[in-house]
Amino acid sequence: MQLVDELLAGNRRALARTISIVEDGGPAAPPLLAALYPHTGRGHVIGITGAPGTGKSTLVNALARSYRQQGRTVGIIAVDPTSPFSGGALLGDRVRMRDLAGDPGIFIRSMATRGNLGGLARATADVISVLDAAGFERILVETVGVGQAEVDIASAAHTTVVVEAPGLGDEVQAIKAGVLEIADLFAVNKADREGADHTVMALQMMQGLAPVPAGHHGTTGGTGRSHHAEAGAQPDGGWLPPITKTVAMRGEGVEMLRDWIELHAVHLRETDGLARREVARAATELDQILRDQLITALLTRLPPGHLDATLAAIARREIDPYTAGAQLLAQFS
Amino acid sequence: MQLVDELLAGNRRALARTISIVEDGGPAAPPLLAALYPHTGRGHVIGITGAPGTGKSTLVNALARSYRQQGRTVGIIAVDPTSPFSGGALLGDRVRMRDLAGDPGIFIRSMATRGNLGGLARATADVISVLDAAGFERILVETVGVGQAEVDIASAAHTTVVVEAPGLGDEVQAIKAGVLEIADLFAVNKADREGADHTVMALQMMQGLAPVPAGHHGTTGGTGRSHHAEAGAQPDGGWLPPITKTVAMRGEGVEMLRDWIELHAVHLRETDGLARREVARAATELDQILRDQLITALLTRLPPGHLDATLAAIARREIDPYTAGAQLLAQFS
Repeated sequence: MQLVDELLAGNRRALARTISIVEDGGPAAPPLLAALYPHTGRGHVIGITGAPGTGKSTLVNALARSYRQQGRTVGIIAVDPTSPFSGGALLGDRVRMRDLAGDPGIFIRSMATRGNLGGLARATADVISVLDAAGFERILVETVGVGQAEVDIASAAHTTVVVEAPGLGDEVQAIKAGVLEIADLFAVNKADREGADHTVMALQMMQGLAPVPAGHHGTTGGTGRSHHAEAGAQPDGGWLPPITKTVAMRGEGVEMLRDWIELHAVHLRETDGLARREVARAATELDQILRDQLITALLTRLPPGHLDATLAAIARREIDPYTAGAQLLAQFS
Repeated sequence: MQLVDELLAGNRRALARTISIVEDGGPAAPPLLAALYPHTGRGHVIGITGAPGTGKSTLVNALARSYRQQGRTVGIIAVDPTSPFSGGALLGDRVRMRDLAGDPGIFIRSMATRGNLGGLARATADVISVLDAAGFERILVETVGVGQAEVDIASAAHTTVVVEAPGLGDEVQAIKAGVLEIADLFAVNKADREGADHTVMALQMMQGLAPVPAGHHGTTGGTGRSHHAEAGAQPDGGWLPPITKTVAMRGEGVEMLRDWIELHAVHLRETDGLARREVARAATELDQILRDQLITALLTRLPPGHLDATLAAIARREIDPYTAGAQLLAQFS
């Protein structure tokens, strides 16, 4: 395919057009992705997630700049599950563009949901594949919002960075119970604010480590680690998520964060971690694709008006949704 | 079924057991729901959503008390898509229980995700049906978090209340663009705080109304409405979402909010709104049920090891997920 050849040759317009086709998810997308897929598997995918107000976008920009200083190319996907209807440019986007645009080693794409969250996770995974095939060495996937959306999207990443910030209140603290299980790295951003050490300690306690006396904390960029365990790769092949402090606005601690990401990438390659994550990524995407294809196939085969009649019957309480579903399924197979 | 008879007779233990079975989503759930479904359709379902920090839980409690003062029974479902892994009690739950428990006219249930967001939306819709069949007159569905999760869960509500609060920052403001399209009512909670009028005005501007001069704003509980259009039911059969101010902590403005909800319920019954929402609810739930049943049916029919081999091939880039999906689909149908 000419579009694929152009994309692989580094044509930026071909890249943008391919992403648009893939995002739309129409019939032109699967053959494109099939042609690109053998060229994927080289980029390292970094998910960056956290609650609103943690300064994720600034941190992503700082991280991208830091990678550029190393000469690495960077793709950025900003996913906003909180803008289900806009479908267009995000608020932070113009700021981001002004900051990083014009550098041919960076490609930025914003994505909002189209109808359902599963669709967004699918589209995100596909756009990652396109950027990967186009040769971007580090792919940063930023998700704005909190909750299951992040977890779903994190499943497309090799390394997941959870961003926290001091003083976001109790409701935000509660979120940690969930994100703890997806984090490969913690970044306590806005670490020059009061309460940063408290946030670090709270994370350490959630990791089941004894808290470190206040005086022992590192400064910005330090890991504030207890003496009970060193963060990072463990002797048993495991990985204890490091906790780094950053002040993204001033670029402080960003190189340390970048280096931890790279250490995690090495750790994945040296253990069976990378292979396991690749299988998990495949499972997530295949599951979503199959669900879409199956329901499309079923609806296509229904006689005209049948679905509307079924929905009306459910709404009138003449049949329940489970029985209706079972009947439709029986007709299908 | 004995369990269904007991539930319909008002047995609280039978209700709790039924909800547990339905939430788990195992094979015992569909027949239970089929037996209960003819008894549903009487309760009014009120979705209450908004960003963290807006005081949703306090508002839900105050609203429940307000309904109880009218003698109406209230079911509360607190959905937390931000706790994907906990599966257990939520932070605010004990507070809530202390506040409202012991009143037989109130039933409270917390739900967290189990694996995927679609599953949560399905389980929420099912638990609503159970509470509806059990005779609860008002069913309050509170979602903690921001984004698509709320939109999905709001599709199970008759009336959706979007809760805002002053001074939550720009990132939260951005969310409004999305929630505007699902809101039947806005509650600007914590309205005794600085900036409440600003929040009301911002919402009015997003509704496309000219802002009202500051002096014309109502006090707590007022709608702060411009002179261009009256909120609520419109002469053309439409509905302009009212904006109410509340201080849930002190119960201020809560009766006004409750009365607007009731007016919206009347509006839905007097137009084709109720019928349309019932069909939309049926469509959302049937879609989710079919997707689950279809993928289960497909996976069940695969030869042992076939799925693992496919995932490994995708991870090794020997095949792309779309082609793999199409091949599995072809085998199935």
